[in-house]
Amino acid sequence: MPLVRISLMQGKTKEFRTAVGEAVHRAMVETINVPAPDHFQVITEHAKEDLVYDPSFLDIARTDGVVFIQISLNIGRTVDQKRALYRRIAELLAENPGIRKENVFINLVEVVKENWSFGNGEAQYTK
Amino acid sequence: MPLVRISLMQGKTKEFRTAVGEAVHRAMVETINVPAPDHFQVITEHAKEDLVYDPSFLDIARTDGVVFIQISLNIGRTVDQKRALYRRIAELLAENPGIRKENVFINLVEVVKENWSFGNGEAQYTK
Amino acid sequence: MPLVRISLMQGKTKEFRTAVGEAVHRAMVETINVPAPDHFQVITEHAKEDLVYDPSFLDIARTDGVVFIQISLNIGRTVDQKRALYRRIAELLAENPGIRKENVFINLVEVVKENWSFGNGEAQYTK
Repeated sequence: MPLVRISLMQGKTKEFRTAVGEAVHRAMVETINVPAPDHFQVITEHAKEDLVYDPSFLDIARTDGVVFIQISLNIGRTVDQKRALYRRIAELLAENPGIRKENVFINLVEVVKENWSFGNGEAQYTK
Repeated sequence: MPLVRISLMQGKTKEFRTAVGEAVHRAMVETINVPAPDHFQVITEHAKEDLVYDPSFLDIARTDGVVFIQISLNIGRTVDQKRALYRRIAELLAENPGIRKENVFINLVEVVKENWSFGNGEAQYTK
Repeated sequence: MPLVRISLMQGKTKEFRTAVGEAVHRAMVETINVPAPDHFQVITEHAKEDLVYDPSFLDIARTDGVVFIQISLNIGRTVDQKRALYRRIAELLAENPGIRKENVFINLVEVVKENWSFGNGEAQYTK
């Protein structure tokens, strides 16, 4: 059920963007029990002036390689699971496509399970 | 008050995109008491590699015609109202512009009523 | 921690878009205790048919100059703080880049503090 929005600076290759999406997805599968085929993402590229970030907030050195990851998902993960998720997303993005861990910005938006329809006009999680 | 984000594959006509927005809006008016003029949407098109979906999660056969609909709205709808909303969105999108029901992915994000300003810098729903 | 999404009609200059982002950010700093360097935004432009708004809902006269501002932020602001935020965003946007107050549409999405990672794969607000 997660719906993931990934925003990054324009000019990356298709392969780079796909690798970002796959790293984020794999981290969710590994750390917060997201089923492997539960894979839904929107990846967007932006001009420098439209992807605004602070280069040092909380003493973290960010660059134009910054990636914003906003994940809408079901409520119920523990703080430890969320910590594991953030750690694993940063690790996997560092491996491939090679994003500095400082550049990984993540936000979770939690919703209740009846707030999803995966197709056919049904609320699959309320059955 | 709903703010609706609709994401679909690039290459659709302007008429197609407008029909998608109108179907989603009409379904909200019919099923969850959204006022007809309460119509605010952002529709975006994406390259194939940037609109990521699983072609069979939950045994629903999705294609590149997939549409992601994320609706921010006030908390308080019942599960039955949400079910009616999903059903009606899928029905109306099937009628016009003719989207397969399997391709309709919906997510609701609920907020409290003081979280909206419709203009003039005021919180209209707190009056 | 706010992550701000700003959506406006295409055709504005880079300077205009940057001024919108800065006005929204400054209003958050002034009214709801957002740290000045806590500045993260995604600004997007849309064709007229893709940025759908009602021209008179709630008797507010909107034009193509409409701006949608969706702010994901920590839960906990009072209704009065939210009112002050909306007022200040509209005031500052009216000053620069000169947006009519009627055209300022705002939505807040609140999350818990463990739902953020600002980099390094850590949940900075849970420490």
